[in-house]
Order: sequence, then structure tokens, then C-alpha cells
Amino acid sequence: MKYGIAVFPEKKVQDIANSYRKRYDPHYSLIPPHITLKQAFEMDDDQLSRAIVHLDQVAQQTSPFEARFTKVSTFHPTNNVIFLSIADPAPFKSLHEKINQGCLQHEESYDFIPHLTIGQSLSDDELHDVYGSLRMSTFDLSTRVDCFHLLYQLENGSWTIYQSFLLNQDQVQE
Amino acid sequence: MKYGIAVFPEKKVQDIANSYRKRYDPHYSLIPPHITLKQAFEMDDDQLSRAIVHLDQVAQQTSPFEARFTKVSTFHPTNNVIFLSIADPAPFKSLHEKINQGCLQHEESYDFIPHLTIGQSLSDDELHDVYGSLRMSTFDLSTRVDCFHLLYQLENGSWTIYQSFLLNQDQVQE
Repeated sequence: MKYGIAVFPEKKVQDIANSYRKRYDPHYSLIPPHITLKQAFEMDDDQLSRAIVHLDQVAQQTSPFEARFTKVSTFHPTNNVIFLSIADPAPFKSLHEKINQGCLQHEESYDFIPHLTIGQSLSDDELHDVYGSLRMSTFDLSTRVDCFHLLYQLENGSWTIYQSFLLNQDQVQE
Repeated sequence: MKYGIAVFPEKKVQDIANSYRKRYDPHYSLIPPHITLKQAFEMDDDQLSRAIVHLDQVAQQTSPFEARFTKVSTFHPTNNVIFLSIADPAPFKSLHEKINQGCLQHEESYDFIPHLTIGQSLSDDELHDVYGSLRMSTFDLSTRVDCFHLLYQLENGSWTIYQSFLLNQDQVQE
């Protein structure tokens, strides 16, 4: 079964992201707006049990944090994704590194750059049109990140929550 | 903000439910297949904090259970919903009653009948066609219920997870 790990931002951020995703992201109806912490990977039931213990430990070792989104960026020419970039990626990078260890360690082909996708699978022309108009916009959005979610994928491509992991309010900020 | 509380069954049950929902349920892309524990209701941030404490307590007091789905049923003529009915509704009814108390107590206009919707908003003719063909089918599906989820609704009508609540493995079965 295919699993993934992600953060869902607060409603106000999701609503704004969806106003773009509706037009520019073919995954619009498959998953809510999210920041991926770990790309889709396969696990069987034994691996799942171990992963949950691991993710519980990661959550215990991590304090909640704020994420701010101030501008639109793109991964072009690597791929034609447009996203809200995160002002301070450090807490996401730290969380990603803690998750991607032990039983959940997988080789990664790209550096981890946390982002909130608002458009993907665009043609080069579309990308330049959309990014050209959005790059001048400024955003001032923020969300509190106090949990992350283990999700699994259904046959139709959509994602369902398996379990959420609450970050530790009492953990001293790193 | 609008919240709801639901259980998501295991993948195999969701995939089968979606094979019908795709054709017969206009909410197909708004939320994965689910068993509602509490219909949509409004909460502000203060109420949310209290609700989370309450839901944590409910989860602590409830042991995981199995749910079996063996046949298709309908709420017609009350409404034109078709659903997989639950062989033993008692654990869901108990959980619903525990949730719908204290800060989450709301007046309800209908008896709570746990169900997994596979079709809704059908015309009378559609309902009779679909239900007529499905009522003869037998199902033998089961899922373990070891958590429930607090969800919130976005502007586009879709639902996002807010937090999941794990049932208590060490709780003595009622």
C-alpha cells in the first residue's frame, strides 16, 4: 500500500491555495492543499507498525512552529510546479530529516524543499503565463504547524488520513 | 468554521465504496468514504479547544472494534441515500453518544444510524434502479476501527483532517 506524510495548513491558507489549484493542479480533488514531508512510498503492515512507533517518537521530539508564505515560486525547469514558498524552511527540513530515518529511510533523488503546490503538470506556456502573473503578487499568509499526518492512497488516486501525529507542546524549541 | 467527526474504513472497503460513489455520490471528490459519527456543526476556536479535550477523553474510554458490512440499504423515503449497512451498529452508537455530550452536545433531528454512504442525491427513479440491482448483492467486508477523525470543511466544500483520535488498545471491551 502506498503511504505519504504531509502537513495540512490552516483553513485560510488552504482556501487561497485551492483558488489556484482548482485551475492549475490536476491533483486538486485527490488531496487537500498540503506541504509534503515525505513523498509516496510503499509499506506492508509490518513496516506500518514500525513506522508508527517511529513517527510517534519524531512527534514527541518536535515542537509546534509557525510557517509563513510570502511569495510564489517554481521548480521550472526541473519540473513545471508552481508553489507558495515557505519563508523559513528550517523547521520543515528538520522534521523531514527526523522522519526520513530508521525504518523510514529512503534514498532521495532531490534535495527536500518544503513547498505548498498550487499548480503542476502545466505546459511550459501555461507555466510562464501563470507564474508571470503570480510572481508579482505578494502574500502574507501564516499557519501554525502542530501536527503531521500519515496518509494512504486509494485505487482512485485520492489520499485518506491514516493517523495524525501531534507535535509536542512541551518540547523546548530547537 | 464547520467541523465534522468521522471514521474512515480500511483501504479495501474504501476502494469498493468508491467504485459506487464515483457514479452515485456527488460528494465523491469532497471526502473519502466514511462513517459519520457527528454531522457538520459550527465551532469557534474556544469551542475547538474544549472539543479536543472532550474527544481525547472519549477516545481514552473506547476500545477499538471491528465493523462488518454485509448488505446495501437505503433511507428512502426519508432521503434518497444508498449505503452499506453495518452488521452490528452498537459500537458506533456508543461512540456517537459519548461524542455528542458536554461541549459537543447538539439536538439531533434523526436517530443515529451508522452507515457508509455509496450514493446520495439520487432521483427516485435512479434510486430504485440502483438499489434494485444492489439489494441482491451480498458483501463480506470488514474493517478495524481504531481511531476517529475531527475534520473541517474548506470553502470548496471538501473536508480536511484536523486531528485523529486513537481509541484505547488497553481499554477493556464494553
